[in-house]
Amino acid sequence: MKEFVDHYQEEFHQKYGVRTDLAIEAHEVIVEKEGPPEIPGVIVNNEKTEHALISRVTVENEIGARMIGKAPGHYSTIESPELRQHNREIHEQLGGLLAKEIQWFLEQNQVGAEDAILVVGLGNWNATPDALGPKVVDELMVTRHLLELSPPELRKGLRPIAAIAPGVLGLTGIETGEIIRGIVNQIDAKAIICVDALASRSVSRLCSTIQISDTGINPGSGVGNKRMAINRDTLGIPVLAIGVPTVVHATTIVSDAMDILAGSDPAQAQRAADVPQRTSFNLDPQAIMGTQPQSSAQLLTPQQKQQMISKVLEPYIGSMIVTPKDIDELISDLTNVIAGGLNSAFHDEVDYTEIFQYLS
Amino acid sequence: MKEFVDHYQEEFHQKYGVRTDLAIEAHEVIVEKEGPPEIPGVIVNNEKTEHALISRVTVENEIGARMIGKAPGHYSTIESPELRQHNREIHEQLGGLLAKEIQWFLEQNQVGAEDAILVVGLGNWNATPDALGPKVVDELMVTRHLLELSPPELRKGLRPIAAIAPGVLGLTGIETGEIIRGIVNQIDAKAIICVDALASRSVSRLCSTIQISDTGINPGSGVGNKRMAINRDTLGIPVLAIGVPTVVHATTIVSDAMDILAGSDPAQAQRAADVPQRTSFNLDPQAIMGTQPQSSAQLLTPQQKQQMISKVLEPYIGSMIVTPKDIDELISDLTNVIAGGLNSAFHDEVDYTEIFQYLS
Amino acid sequence: MKEFVDHYQEEFHQKYGVRTDLAIEAHEVIVEKEGPPEIPGVIVNNEKTEHALISRVTVENEIGARMIGKAPGHYSTIESPELRQHNREIHEQLGGLLAKEIQWFLEQNQVGAEDAILVVGLGNWNATPDALGPKVVDELMVTRHLLELSPPELRKGLRPIAAIAPGVLGLTGIETGEIIRGIVNQIDAKAIICVDALASRSVSRLCSTIQISDTGINPGSGVGNKRMAINRDTLGIPVLAIGVPTVVHATTIVSDAMDILAGSDPAQAQRAADVPQRTSFNLDPQAIMGTQPQSSAQLLTPQQKQQMISKVLEPYIGSMIVTPKDIDELISDLTNVIAGGLNSAFHDEVDYTEIFQYLS
Amino acid sequence: MKEFVDHYQEEFHQKYGVRTDLAIEAHEVIVEKEGPPEIPGVIVNNEKTEHALISRVTVENEIGARMIGKAPGHYSTIESPELRQHNREIHEQLGGLLAKEIQWFLEQNQVGAEDAILVVGLGNWNATPDALGPKVVDELMVTRHLLELSPPELRKGLRPIAAIAPGVLGLTGIETGEIIRGIVNQIDAKAIICVDALASRSVSRLCSTIQISDTGINPGSGVGNKRMAINRDTLGIPVLAIGVPTVVHATTIVSDAMDILAGSDPAQAQRAADVPQRTSFNLDPQAIMGTQPQSSAQLLTPQQKQQMISKVLEPYIGSMIVTPKDIDELISDLTNVIAGGLNSAFHDEVDYTEIFQYLS
Repeated sequence: MKEFVDHYQEEFHQKYGVRTDLAIEAHEVIVEKEGPPEIPGVIVNNEKTEHALISRVTVENEIGARMIGKAPGHYSTIESPELRQHNREIHEQLGGLLAKEIQWFLEQNQVGAEDAILVVGLGNWNATPDALGPKVVDELMVTRHLLELSPPELRKGLRPIAAIAPGVLGLTGIETGEIIRGIVNQIDAKAIICVDALASRSVSRLCSTIQISDTGINPGSGVGNKRMAINRDTLGIPVLAIGVPTVVHATTIVSDAMDILAGSDPAQAQRAADVPQRTSFNLDPQAIMGTQPQSSAQLLTPQQKQQMISKVLEPYIGSMIVTPKDIDELISDLTNVIAGGLNSAFHDEVDYTEIFQYLS
Repeated sequence: MKEFVDHYQEEFHQKYGVRTDLAIEAHEVIVEKEGPPEIPGVIVNNEKTEHALISRVTVENEIGARMIGKAPGHYSTIESPELRQHNREIHEQLGGLLAKEIQWFLEQNQVGAEDAILVVGLGNWNATPDALGPKVVDELMVTRHLLELSPPELRKGLRPIAAIAPGVLGLTGIETGEIIRGIVNQIDAKAIICVDALASRSVSRLCSTIQISDTGINPGSGVGNKRMAINRDTLGIPVLAIGVPTVVHATTIVSDAMDILAGSDPAQAQRAADVPQRTSFNLDPQAIMGTQPQSSAQLLTPQQKQQMISKVLEPYIGSMIVTPKDIDELISDLTNVIAGGLNSAFHDEVDYTEIFQYLS
Repeated sequence: MKEFVDHYQEEFHQKYGVRTDLAIEAHEVIVEKEGPPEIPGVIVNNEKTEHALISRVTVENEIGARMIGKAPGHYSTIESPELRQHNREIHEQLGGLLAKEIQWFLEQNQVGAEDAILVVGLGNWNATPDALGPKVVDELMVTRHLLELSPPELRKGLRPIAAIAPGVLGLTGIETGEIIRGIVNQIDAKAIICVDALASRSVSRLCSTIQISDTGINPGSGVGNKRMAINRDTLGIPVLAIGVPTVVHATTIVSDAMDILAGSDPAQAQRAADVPQRTSFNLDPQAIMGTQPQSSAQLLTPQQKQQMISKVLEPYIGSMIVTPKDIDELISDLTNVIAGGLNSAFHDEVDYTEIFQYLS
Repeated sequence: MKEFVDHYQEEFHQKYGVRTDLAIEAHEVIVEKEGPPEIPGVIVNNEKTEHALISRVTVENEIGARMIGKAPGHYSTIESPELRQHNREIHEQLGGLLAKEIQWFLEQNQVGAEDAILVVGLGNWNATPDALGPKVVDELMVTRHLLELSPPELRKGLRPIAAIAPGVLGLTGIETGEIIRGIVNQIDAKAIICVDALASRSVSRLCSTIQISDTGINPGSGVGNKRMAINRDTLGIPVLAIGVPTVVHATTIVSDAMDILAGSDPAQAQRAADVPQRTSFNLDPQAIMGTQPQSSAQLLTPQQKQQMISKVLEPYIGSMIVTPKDIDELISDLTNVIAGGLNSAFHDEVDYTEIFQYLS
């Protein structure tokens, strides 16, 4: 699980007291606060399908990026409460929607139909809620080595796929970004797709939202933290990120509970009730420490609130996560949707029969 | 993960507004509320070792049971914050303490040195925080089948151990209690030891407390819930339970946060600060709905509070758990401590060399 | 992995020097040896489909059983070299064929459409070639607990399925048969289906044959071996066995090599070349020690042969197995075929939507 | 599992008809064939301990390399039948012996006490006999990331360890050598240690021999095979390889069986009986096709023999492996010995308490 924080988000947070990974969510905040839905440099486009709501946000330029708190690029989310239900047929359809989005992202980033792609499963296979990336890699149809051994005439229209789940820093002692950069330097990949479990700021989004973006993964830049970004700048090729929120930080839940109880801003409580899937106000401990213009009536100082959060969560405090009890089944279903979407985006309508016959 | 709830607990909860699995915790509540530490029918005994605090509570009779809200029997807890630290040497020592407690419980329950024992690893191996039981079973030295094949003269002083991790209801479609009863009827076990991950009511106890008791496991008795108890009554032989809290219900955390913020009862806040490892007031949603004499000044009705909890946790509400981020490493260490303790309690100072030579 | 040996097999082996788990194979041996294909009490029926050869053998009575060396009952095999190829579409078709066979067996054994079934995954999940049973159980749609909580009007036409992978004797210390009998006594199952990896006597059949029978599993009855049979006699309800050969004993391979080299019986070599998928002569060490009328010209005494086998395989000798290098992928594919076949046989054309809506 | 084949081995095989990974085995062959044990450029040194025989071979120069069929460098083997027995105490002692050998190899290769090391677990975690490398990596104490965050004064005498199990080509689509080179280029490792399961040419050595060498891993150079060597030449830093034979190729077993039966060279049979742990004559199919001066009396042509091997093993032929039934337990024990040896070699007598206190 990575924390998506960069300077655009920081600035947005200073202004609106909200921290969010989802471009569509940030867009919503602005519309609520500022009124009319036109934001310069930001294009939003929604599509409603039978089982999902697809939202596509394009941040066109620096102005839009600073407005919405997101780096310039494309952001799509597929939202469906049915992702949380164990229905194989609907999941196959959602995998199909994901495949189309991925193909669109590949085209947008000039990745050709025969260009090799490296899929990276981020996260820790030993901890169920963080195992999504490694599990997806496990289900991928990997073809790079097969195509390398085949004569060129058979490879036509086929895409070489490589995949790795490098393991988290605590298991390897090596930054994930370093491992990926090392591998990319050795192979001929034309794009990277990272799959990761995310920490959400709202329970309602858990395991029901898939986000695809082409701005990569930008770990925080706190004190002593030299963690390397995984994006086009650091790796030299397009980096798509596919993420699903599977946990919420416990501090978020606790702070949220206090905010609701404090309830000094009835409008806020109202909004929280109206758009639960979209907005997460002041839910993280850092947010609590910052300026919070929208909850001026709140009775607690940030310091007091932080103390109370500590009281509930000590001795773990910042390292507790909240996750559904049946997270193992949810992860298993999400793995099928995402791996299915990737396999279909990569290899759809191609025929490997000849290759396999040649090789066997 | 099982919920320990029986009629003794229910009565205790009605009186003190507190629900707890730990006898020592219940004892503490009474002492706080009622004054002098003598409770008829309840004997408490503490021991401080270099790395742990061991508390032994004996509930002698029905009077004591109703006072303290725990069925008559023995309850030991080994508490050590060092269980949360990755120090193999200290963990070996803690495993040694556990072995001694287990041996004491076996003696108390008239289980002879050569009597066969069935160890049952409860919980779901697919979900990291619930995988403790199955992982312990994986590390056990299982001997029953070896001893059955050996001549009697070689078996002297050796204990037949059988072990199974039956899997949770969602995986098998069968009540765990039914599976255990079925197996016990087939083999000659003289005692059962269940190992399970528990849901705690306090963050501070997570992964730092091991509880041993001989009153078995008593799942709740709610509407439509016919879940079978796992104890001497239902199985006919002594049932020891070894449990470690690895998660807290999210509703507990949220309710706790609201209580602290409500803070209308300063004494309570004070006590919470003083004895964080011992007392968990009103932390579960059901508690909130019940009588709460000690927080009379609280401003929220239980209904209001429940609504607010729902707002924070929907759509998951009752099915969210809170667990440390590094739960995989904590479970791995706890597995070593408990499996080490069991192996040592079962087979210490015995020599299997001859058996193995005979069999190979 | 179980060894299928009973007194019928023993007698057949005495007569023909062949030991085989497959009824169809035994039938073939007789036809070869005795001439015309009519065997009293034995009915054979073959069906050729696009991707598989299905052979159905019915042993009608004691006479047939003694002739063919198989207990009275039904035996079907689905043979397809395409089981060894990674082709999802063909595998789905083979799963469909399996589903039909299973449904036929259930009907033959008077198991009703709403009767509960217990599926047992035999074998050791820690050893890849023996993990087939546990992996199939992992992929099953288990419904017994859901249906028990549903009102009767919703359960119409739905079949309660329970499932367990009990683990091998070395892990549990308990006979698998004892565990199953214990569970069956607790629940209302009307039939048992065991899934197991088998030891084949021929490399050519590895991972390309699925066998279904209704005579259960009969472990050997050697000295000191009290292993309990898993069949209708011991459990009181029909026991179907689904097995796939995933390993060959190393002694079989070595003995086979010696036989081929000895080659004193050219007819035998010829037959071996002609029907490689069907017949395995004298391939196990016990067979070598017995009467072998068909290889009279062989130069080695059984003792000499056994010595030579020992020389090749010491110090492991009888405990070495031969398996394909890519056994992990083969097991993974076979798991999909068998779990798919079972899920389809159990739940085809039924709709769980209402149940799930009721329960959620 | 890698095949160790290079031009030295090829030449040796041409001359003696023997193919072996073990330097000590090659040495033995020469002594048998050529007489006196002095080989120019090759130094052999044996040590007998309570539970193991340690053999150290140094190939000093090109002459020695061509004589013994091994690249110049150091080769140690620790042989102990007790590696196959489940005795924790003896395994700890063997881990201690391994630690000393590793430390000696690090010194020989000028790797300093505080130099970072990358441990690579080769092999396929999905196939039990090939999972040794990944399992060892799982049990390693990884410290690189911790030391990077610590102040220099605390790091004194501590060794940064990084570790990865990259997965096999079939799972990643990327050559293992490419992945390692990529990572090495990103981090500051001063040496690489590869842990791998090997294919042995003799059953007697399975799971009872640990080999350490500093000449790296040299995959074969067959037609169309561009597999990259993992050694000092390709990676720029010392590469130690720790290997344990866990499988034998089925073709080896079959060929061996035929040779023993052919038995035309009684001396050979005698030698095979005398030195079963050391010599493996003509055991692989390629060897069979080559010159075989020592079995001149053999009745079969290589082509005939190859045909017979195919008859036994078709349709799998070259892709069948032979492994002990209880390979899961053997791998588990070997993992403890090797991970214990590495952890002890890396971190012995150092104290991480201060580091952990600083970081927590």
